[in-house]
Amino acid sequence: MIDVAIMGHGVVGSGVAEILHNHSKRIAEKAKENINVKYILDLRDFEGLEYSDKFTKDFSVILNDPDVKIVVEVMGGCTFAYDYVKACLLAGKSVCTSNKELVAAKGSELLDIALEKNVNFLFEASVGGGIPVLRPMAQCLTANEITEVTGILNGTTNFILTKMISENMSFDDALKLAQELGYAEKDPTADVEGHDACRKICILASLGFGKHVYPNQVKTEGITNISLVDVEYADAFDSVIKLIGRTRKLDNGKITANVYPALVSRKNMLAGVNDVFNAIMVRGDEVGDVMFYGRGAGKFPTASAVVGDVIDCAKHLSARKYLHWIDGEKDYVADSIDDITRLYVLVKTDNLAEAIKEIETTFSGASYIVSKDNSEVAILTETDIERNLREQINSLSCSEVVKTLHAID
Amino acid sequence: MIDVAIMGHGVVGSGVAEILHNHSKRIAEKAKENINVKYILDLRDFEGLEYSDKFTKDFSVILNDPDVKIVVEVMGGCTFAYDYVKACLLAGKSVCTSNKELVAAKGSELLDIALEKNVNFLFEASVGGGIPVLRPMAQCLTANEITEVTGILNGTTNFILTKMISENMSFDDALKLAQELGYAEKDPTADVEGHDACRKICILASLGFGKHVYPNQVKTEGITNISLVDVEYADAFDSVIKLIGRTRKLDNGKITANVYPALVSRKNMLAGVNDVFNAIMVRGDEVGDVMFYGRGAGKFPTASAVVGDVIDCAKHLSARKYLHWIDGEKDYVADSIDDITRLYVLVKTDNLAEAIKEIETTFSGASYIVSKDNSEVAILTETDIERNLREQINSLSCSEVVKTLHAID
Repeated sequence: MIDVAIMGHGVVGSGVAEILHNHSKRIAEKAKENINVKYILDLRDFEGLEYSDKFTKDFSVILNDPDVKIVVEVMGGCTFAYDYVKACLLAGKSVCTSNKELVAAKGSELLDIALEKNVNFLFEASVGGGIPVLRPMAQCLTANEITEVTGILNGTTNFILTKMISENMSFDDALKLAQELGYAEKDPTADVEGHDACRKICILASLGFGKHVYPNQVKTEGITNISLVDVEYADAFDSVIKLIGRTRKLDNGKITANVYPALVSRKNMLAGVNDVFNAIMVRGDEVGDVMFYGRGAGKFPTASAVVGDVIDCAKHLSARKYLHWIDGEKDYVADSIDDITRLYVLVKTDNLAEAIKEIETTFSGASYIVSKDNSEVAILTETDIERNLREQINSLSCSEVVKTLHAID
Repeated sequence: MIDVAIMGHGVVGSGVAEILHNHSKRIAEKAKENINVKYILDLRDFEGLEYSDKFTKDFSVILNDPDVKIVVEVMGGCTFAYDYVKACLLAGKSVCTSNKELVAAKGSELLDIALEKNVNFLFEASVGGGIPVLRPMAQCLTANEITEVTGILNGTTNFILTKMISENMSFDDALKLAQELGYAEKDPTADVEGHDACRKICILASLGFGKHVYPNQVKTEGITNISLVDVEYADAFDSVIKLIGRTRKLDNGKITANVYPALVSRKNMLAGVNDVFNAIMVRGDEVGDVMFYGRGAGKFPTASAVVGDVIDCAKHLSARKYLHWIDGEKDYVADSIDDITRLYVLVKTDNLAEAIKEIETTFSGASYIVSKDNSEVAILTETDIERNLREQINSLSCSEVVKTLHAID
């Protein structure tokens, strides 16, 4: 029998407790061990549960109990979670977490401690909720050099954008609906401003390319600036707007990492990922593109990924795992302006004929659409170095640039 | 250093040899060991390769060399491959294979031997080529009870159907093109009759539900019967025709397993899987639907999955792995006629008015489309037990049933 402690009894934590409690028999079969939840750490009281006797408010009880070999951290945030996880690893306990903020901020340090102490630090649930992605990247694709990861990493914004695209709902109305349905928090900043997706692309980049990428190294743009007008132009370009996290390896050994709303061509599988679903496309030099798709959030999907990690820990208590990366240099993440992209450019003009003449000569090969009232032109450029495209955009004199967005084929 | 032998230097085998040879440094970093290809078994001569000196025609050289800890079997077929793999496992060597025919026919027996000898028998490449699916199912989704696996498991037929759907190409022309492009064999039977997909759904069902499913237990129907007329009706029902492998767990502990061409609703992610790509949708009780997508065949995608297994073996030479299932009972696979489905039914009639009256009363809630010349009606039923739907179809008296296909939402 292996004793486990769960730190945090919120949405995910209660899901972990319920799965371990309700499916103990099948989990024991998989783990080849009975898994016993010995403690649940939470400052609140939870009475009337079948496992109410397991709650404690005192972290030191968990830390100092040598029988607790595996600790589940599902408190979220970085302050207490960091201190507690670090202490547990140093005490020789394996840790499984869904806490993307923690992994994005402190991953390489915590992985080093885990390696030193010969325990596991696992966080499959931190990216894509219940979708298997980190372990498959690290294990199944290990013969590949990863060259790019592009994903729809946030279910809340994907739900909002789906409503804007398929039901012509305004951003504000879609956000309100997402809040009513429990998909968005009262304060939706972390989702709609892209911070959540940023943490996830940090983890994917760190694992994919082997060096830690920190959130402040990722240029991050949310979806608050996306209007139904953009959605309509995107449709006319046979594309849909998605909040994209993207990281690419450059030839010079550096990488780029970005979060931005982008026009995604309907030919791309990511364009079909709707509602609260997430998908992560991983490009390897041998395998080409593979995609992982599913529910990127939610109590039981996320909790099931955490329990998957717990079972893995129970089977390999002292094994050093495949998940590892080292700290990155300060200038490791390059500005993506020197990488290739396509851009969507929305311009206003009061001289359509001249504006179009200029657009046609400036952006050779670009597609464009003129608004019904002849006051706007939406342009989809060809693929080029972003710096060149930005220079071309800045050179426009017969029209005024209203907005630019990235576009993905 | 770990010595490896590769049995078979065909498409996949030469890919494995090239990856191990060309990327030896990065593979050694991942495996924490140098991986040395000591022998390549093939009856043919391969001169002028950088590793031409490694070829042997004598299997016993590999079997009797105690330094060879890992054997890659990429010969295909079941006769020699079975004898050789069994002998290697019994000799205490781990085996990695891409051979779906072997795993579908002999998986549980070979897994038992591997378990007994405390070595690994891995076959990630046998389903979905380079797509990670077996390891994620077994490890990441292990907290779930798998209830269904539905996939597009054969790239050749998906290429043919994609050409029929998007370019209105006839089956014969599309098959010819697939052969010209090297996607289909001269004798395309194994692909177009569904045998290849059948082997893969056997492996997925065996792993997902824990008991071996043999190819002869799977009702298998290929795509040779699909016409452009069906493609057009499918389109009118907002669906596309795909060759589907499907296995589901029933409440009585039995399972169903089928391969058939089906109308797949465009709302389903599987409908967007085109050309030679494969995708596998796995349903778990906690996580819901997750999907794995990528290149299901091809030299380097498949070889990269084999090499991933080799690296895993090198890291855990004597570990018992997570992949295991037991032999199934004779009546373990139930007839899917007692499971729910939707059906597409194409009927001919010379009395349209009566036929439609009968269709509307027989199939309550069904959609239907009448051909331009009023001689045909294509029906898409509601979801029901297949046996009921078949009885309703058999009761039609005002029209003659030309074809029925399954339909998936």
